[in-house]
Amino acid sequence: MQKILHYIGVVEEALKKNSSTKIPIELYEPIAYSLTIGGKRIRPALLLLANDLFGGKQEDALNAALAIEVFHNFTLVHDDILDNAPLRRGKKSVYEKWNANIAILSGDVMLIQAIQLLSKSNKTHLLEILAIFNTTAIQVCEGQQFDMNFETSLTVSIDDYLKMIALKTAVLLGGSLKIGAVLANAKIEDANHIYEFGKNLGIAFQLMDDVLDLYGNPDKFGKRIGGDIISNKKTYLLLKATELATGRIKKELDFCLTSKVLDDDAKVNKVKIIFNELNIKQLALDEMNLFYNTAISHLDSIDASAEKKLVFENFAKSLMKREN
Amino acid sequence: MQKILHYIGVVEEALKKNSSTKIPIELYEPIAYSLTIGGKRIRPALLLLANDLFGGKQEDALNAALAIEVFHNFTLVHDDILDNAPLRRGKKSVYEKWNANIAILSGDVMLIQAIQLLSKSNKTHLLEILAIFNTTAIQVCEGQQFDMNFETSLTVSIDDYLKMIALKTAVLLGGSLKIGAVLANAKIEDANHIYEFGKNLGIAFQLMDDVLDLYGNPDKFGKRIGGDIISNKKTYLLLKATELATGRIKKELDFCLTSKVLDDDAKVNKVKIIFNELNIKQLALDEMNLFYNTAISHLDSIDASAEKKLVFENFAKSLMKREN
Repeated sequence: MQKILHYIGVVEEALKKNSSTKIPIELYEPIAYSLTIGGKRIRPALLLLANDLFGGKQEDALNAALAIEVFHNFTLVHDDILDNAPLRRGKKSVYEKWNANIAILSGDVMLIQAIQLLSKSNKTHLLEILAIFNTTAIQVCEGQQFDMNFETSLTVSIDDYLKMIALKTAVLLGGSLKIGAVLANAKIEDANHIYEFGKNLGIAFQLMDDVLDLYGNPDKFGKRIGGDIISNKKTYLLLKATELATGRIKKELDFCLTSKVLDDDAKVNKVKIIFNELNIKQLALDEMNLFYNTAISHLDSIDASAEKKLVFENFAKSLMKREN
Repeated sequence: MQKILHYIGVVEEALKKNSSTKIPIELYEPIAYSLTIGGKRIRPALLLLANDLFGGKQEDALNAALAIEVFHNFTLVHDDILDNAPLRRGKKSVYEKWNANIAILSGDVMLIQAIQLLSKSNKTHLLEILAIFNTTAIQVCEGQQFDMNFETSLTVSIDDYLKMIALKTAVLLGGSLKIGAVLANAKIEDANHIYEFGKNLGIAFQLMDDVLDLYGNPDKFGKRIGGDIISNKKTYLLLKATELATGRIKKELDFCLTSKVLDDDAKVNKVKIIFNELNIKQLALDEMNLFYNTAISHLDSIDASAEKKLVFENFAKSLMKREN
C-alpha cells in the first residue's frame, strides 16, 4: 500500500500545482472546489502504478493521471445534478453550493480540461490513450443512464445490473490502468490484462458495496445500515432476492417493497430476514469472488515482475476486506 | 455561395451516415434528434471550405467538420437547459422534449463524441487541432458564463460585451476555419489569418443580430421586433445607449427599463425613440463595420488564390446583408 499512498500524494501535489484562478470565477471556483473537497485519488494513483509496473516514467503519465481525476470529478459534478444530491464527500455538492446551471457549465469545462491534460501526454501514444479515454468516458455516461433507467424499470435482471455497474464504475478503473500501461509502452496483451484486472476488481468492489450496505459494521460503515433497502434501491442483493423468491417469501418481499405502513427499521429487519432465508449475502459474496478471482487471474497473466504485481494484489485484497 | 451550399450538403450527408441507434436509447435518441432538427451546418461547411482554400482533401477534414457540428449542437443542448428554452430551431429543445437530466447526459456524450470524431483526423495534425478545439471549447463555455453573469450584472461595459460575444459565438467560427486550414497544411500565418477572419466576422454577425432585433424588416425577421428591448437584454444597442445617455434621456431610458406600467409595444417604441436620438443604430453599424473590415483585411492577407478567397468574401457579405 505504501506505493499507492506515494502516488496518491504525487497526484494531490500535482493537482494543487495545476489549479489556477481564472475568470469568470463563477466557472472556475466550482471546478477548484470540486477538485479539493477530498477525493481519494485512487484512479490516477492506479494509472501511475500501472505505468510503473511496466517501467514507465512518472512524468510521462502524470498529465494523463490528472486527466482521469478531473474527468472523474466532472462525472460527480454532473451526477449530483442528476441525482439531486446535496452532499458529496460530506461537503455540499457543486449543485447545492451554487446551482444546476453552474454545475452543468463548470462540469462541461472540466470534461474539456481532462482532454487538454490528456493531450499533453507523449505524442507517440496520444491516439491510443485518447481512444481508451473516449470509449471509457462514453461508457460511464451510458452506465449512468442505465442506472437512472433502473429506478423506474420493473424488470432489471442480474445481468443488466452487472453490465450497469461495469459501465458506471468499473470501466474507468480499467481504463485508468490501461492508459498508464500504454504510456509505459506495455505490450498490448498486458495492457488488456491490466484493463480486465481493473474492470473486474471494480465490479467486485461495487458488489462489496451492496453487501456492506446491509451487512457492514455499523460502527465503521459511516452511513445508515440498510439505506439501500429503505430506498428500494435495485442492488445485487435485492435483484437476486427478487429472482429467487417464490410463494410466501415472494409475498413477504413484495409487501416490504410496497408497504406504506412499515417504518424504516422494521422494513430493514424484515428484508434482512428474507435475504437470510434466501442466502443472499453468500450468493453476493460468491459473485463478488468470481469477479475478484477473474481480476487476479488477469493480474497473474501479466508479464511483469512478481514483486511489482504484488502491490496490485495487496491493493485488491484491501478493497475486499474493507468495512466501509 | 454555391461552394458553401455544396459543403453544407456534404456535411448533411455525412451526419446521416454517422448516426446510429445504440442503447441506452434514452441517451442516443436525443443526440440523433438534436443533430437532425435542422442546423444550418455553417461551421463545418466553413471548416471544409478553409480546408479547400489551402488545397486540403475533403476526406482528411470531414471528421473534424462533423466534430465541430456535434460540438456546436452539444452547446445548444446544454444552453437550452441553462436558458430554460423550450424551443430550438422552431422545434422542442431536448430539454423540453425529454428533461434536464437527459439533456445533461446526452450533451455530455456529444462532447465526447466530438473528441472521438476529431481524433479520427490525420495523426500529423492531431495535437494541433486538439489544442485549437480544446481552447475554443473552453472559451465557448466561458462566453456562456459571462452571458449569464450579465443578466444580473449592473455594469456591463461595451468591452465586456464584445469580449463575451467573441467567446460565446465568434471563436468557434474562427476555430472551425483554423482547424480546416491546419488539416490542409496551411502556413501558420495563414491559419491565424483565417482564424481572425472568422472571429471578427462572427463578432460583426452578432452585432448585426442586435441591430436586426429592432431595425429588421418585420416581414422577414421571423421573431418579434424589439424582443431584446422587452426583455431588457444587454445588447450592444442598449449598452451603448446606457453609456451615452445623460440628463433627460438617461431618465427616460431608466424609466423604460424599470417601469411596470409600460406595455411591450409602448416600451419598444419609447426605447427606439431614445436610440434614434442617440444615433445608436449607426454607432452599432459602425462598430460592426470595424469588425467586418478587420475580417476582410485578414482574408486579404492570406496567401491563397484570389478566386478561392472570393467565396469567403461573398459569404461574409451575404451575412452582413441578411434581413433575419
